[in-house]
Amino acid sequence: MQLNPWGSESIKDYDKLTHEFGMQRMPDLGIDNHYFRRGIIFGHRDFDKFWKDFKAKKPVSILTGIMPSGPMHFGHKMVVDQCVFYQNQGIKTRVLVADVEARTTRGTTKEDAERYALEEYLPNWIALGLDPKKSVIYAQSNYGVPYYSFYSLLSGRTTLNEMQAVYGELSPGKIMSAMVQMGDILHPQLPDYDGPSRVLVPVGADQDPHIRLARDLAEKEHLVKPAATFHRFATGIGGSKMSSSKPNSYISLNDPIEVAVKKALNALTGGCNTAAEQKETGGKIEECVVYELYAYHFMPDDKELTEIYRKCTSGEMLCGECKRILREKVEKFMKAHAAKREKAKKQVEKMGVFR
Amino acid sequence: MQLNPWGSESIKDYDKLTHEFGMQRMPDLGIDNHYFRRGIIFGHRDFDKFWKDFKAKKPVSILTGIMPSGPMHFGHKMVVDQCVFYQNQGIKTRVLVADVEARTTRGTTKEDAERYALEEYLPNWIALGLDPKKSVIYAQSNYGVPYYSFYSLLSGRTTLNEMQAVYGELSPGKIMSAMVQMGDILHPQLPDYDGPSRVLVPVGADQDPHIRLARDLAEKEHLVKPAATFHRFATGIGGSKMSSSKPNSYISLNDPIEVAVKKALNALTGGCNTAAEQKETGGKIEECVVYELYAYHFMPDDKELTEIYRKCTSGEMLCGECKRILREKVEKFMKAHAAKREKAKKQVEKMGVFR
Repeated sequence: MQLNPWGSESIKDYDKLTHEFGMQRMPDLGIDNHYFRRGIIFGHRDFDKFWKDFKAKKPVSILTGIMPSGPMHFGHKMVVDQCVFYQNQGIKTRVLVADVEARTTRGTTKEDAERYALEEYLPNWIALGLDPKKSVIYAQSNYGVPYYSFYSLLSGRTTLNEMQAVYGELSPGKIMSAMVQMGDILHPQLPDYDGPSRVLVPVGADQDPHIRLARDLAEKEHLVKPAATFHRFATGIGGSKMSSSKPNSYISLNDPIEVAVKKALNALTGGCNTAAEQKETGGKIEECVVYELYAYHFMPDDKELTEIYRKCTSGEMLCGECKRILREKVEKFMKAHAAKREKAKKQVEKMGVFR
Repeated sequence: MQLNPWGSESIKDYDKLTHEFGMQRMPDLGIDNHYFRRGIIFGHRDFDKFWKDFKAKKPVSILTGIMPSGPMHFGHKMVVDQCVFYQNQGIKTRVLVADVEARTTRGTTKEDAERYALEEYLPNWIALGLDPKKSVIYAQSNYGVPYYSFYSLLSGRTTLNEMQAVYGELSPGKIMSAMVQMGDILHPQLPDYDGPSRVLVPVGADQDPHIRLARDLAEKEHLVKPAATFHRFATGIGGSKMSSSKPNSYISLNDPIEVAVKKALNALTGGCNTAAEQKETGGKIEECVVYELYAYHFMPDDKELTEIYRKCTSGEMLCGECKRILREKVEKFMKAHAAKREKAKKQVEKMGVFR
């Protein structure tokens, strides 16, 4: 059974999104993972076909990218959790470090890109459950020749108009970066890699342009159109957009425990002006970032989450008590995570992603 | 001493070209090669610096490309001869097969590009003197990872405006192809290859846009600006533009001997309407394609060429006699060349350029 942890209101934005861009709403496929059960993954393209292929033991794989620029926060964790879920189902997992993209479109230096990948991102990924032995981890700047050759050639299969329609304003760096991403998404189907097969790319809804171009190119190249799932945005701690340039808008996975806790306790809630009013009307849970943190990250058990929902919306529990629960959850998670990350760092050192 | 085999008139066009685009006129550096001695190489960018570096035993290299699409004709031979000259001076030579360019901008298939390179171009190059043991021969689609990484990243160092100013109308394929060429021209200076060093690219004047962009990017990347020489255009057999789509406008190096001879004998001359007139005024040698064929390809000896010039312009020799000489030269060249090419084909088979 699918849970809608926010009620029917908040999903309207996503309905609009799926409608406008022709994504499909995610149906209930009975997948036992909280991102699916709770509708956090709200939309998809051909995920049903991917899942069917997987269940029929046809060759499938998933692919996702790490942007080695800026801090790794809990918004990024959403993709990692999904990848780890697929990996644990036995699905082949590819994780690419988008260093060419970071360098061409964000001006990140080579040194910074490598440092972010090796010190910030990959240790966190492994701590979150990625098994490097079960996955292909590569840097865009340091991968196989068939891949490069392929993405260079793909550029001849699209036009500036098509790309502008998908991406808006272009530059040589953006065009190159898009073609490299097309190579990332489509290369698993080359004979040098897995051959024709369904590739799933789990992304945030803002990444759909890449998926659309990749699916167009797949059709032209007589490859299987890649599938995608789209998950809900992560709300910033203060209730507005999460932004890498505003450290108080996100909890970083590298934040010291006390900093992470402090940020969590500053999260916007759906509380009322007075305790009396809140006891009367209940909390506005669809506006509550604390509840989102529970739903996405800190309360994988549906019973526990449903109980929070009931207590909050009925006015039985006020924000103070709820935040005591949050503090405990965040502390526990961050402590365990930091220990795993320190162990993972040694693993990453030996991986040689960039050389 | 530099020879001007056409007199001062015909060089005016090239003066205009050098003036408009800021190339430099080639000075007399006393280089004993007919392309230099005869002013066929009329312009350059930093060739003087390249030659000085070479003479001072500093690390230098040359680089040129093969477009594996369409027939290989005597216009292409001009670049080969120059490369072989440098190679024989002991200068490191790189020859790239521009298969990514052919496929993205001309729609050449993978199979055709490989066939053109392996059957049409490389055997002719070797027959003309290229020594594969002394040179680096690579396909754009199948080369080292640092090269790919580098050209992908170079895209972030230019803008659509800059590229449009250099190339005119753009497409994703053209942009990719230009960036790949930037990688070709600049990668020898990467630490994984030769390191910072002067690279010379001998080209026809129409290739100057690539040279200009490469020099701009070299400056941004703190590399040595690549040098270039520009040679005169090859005139079509009939006197107008040589075109790969008009087989009668060129002599192919793969033409059967009798076809090559027939085409050569059809070449436009500078002859007058009547023999009497021509004996009086002499031939218009600057319009004569036969004379160009001598000057570029079939008469490396300056004394012999000067004698032809004297006899023609004085009216002492008419076109019929001159063409008997041409027939003999073409027959002799094509026969020897075909034998060398057949031997070269076996060498090429073993080279594994594409895998």
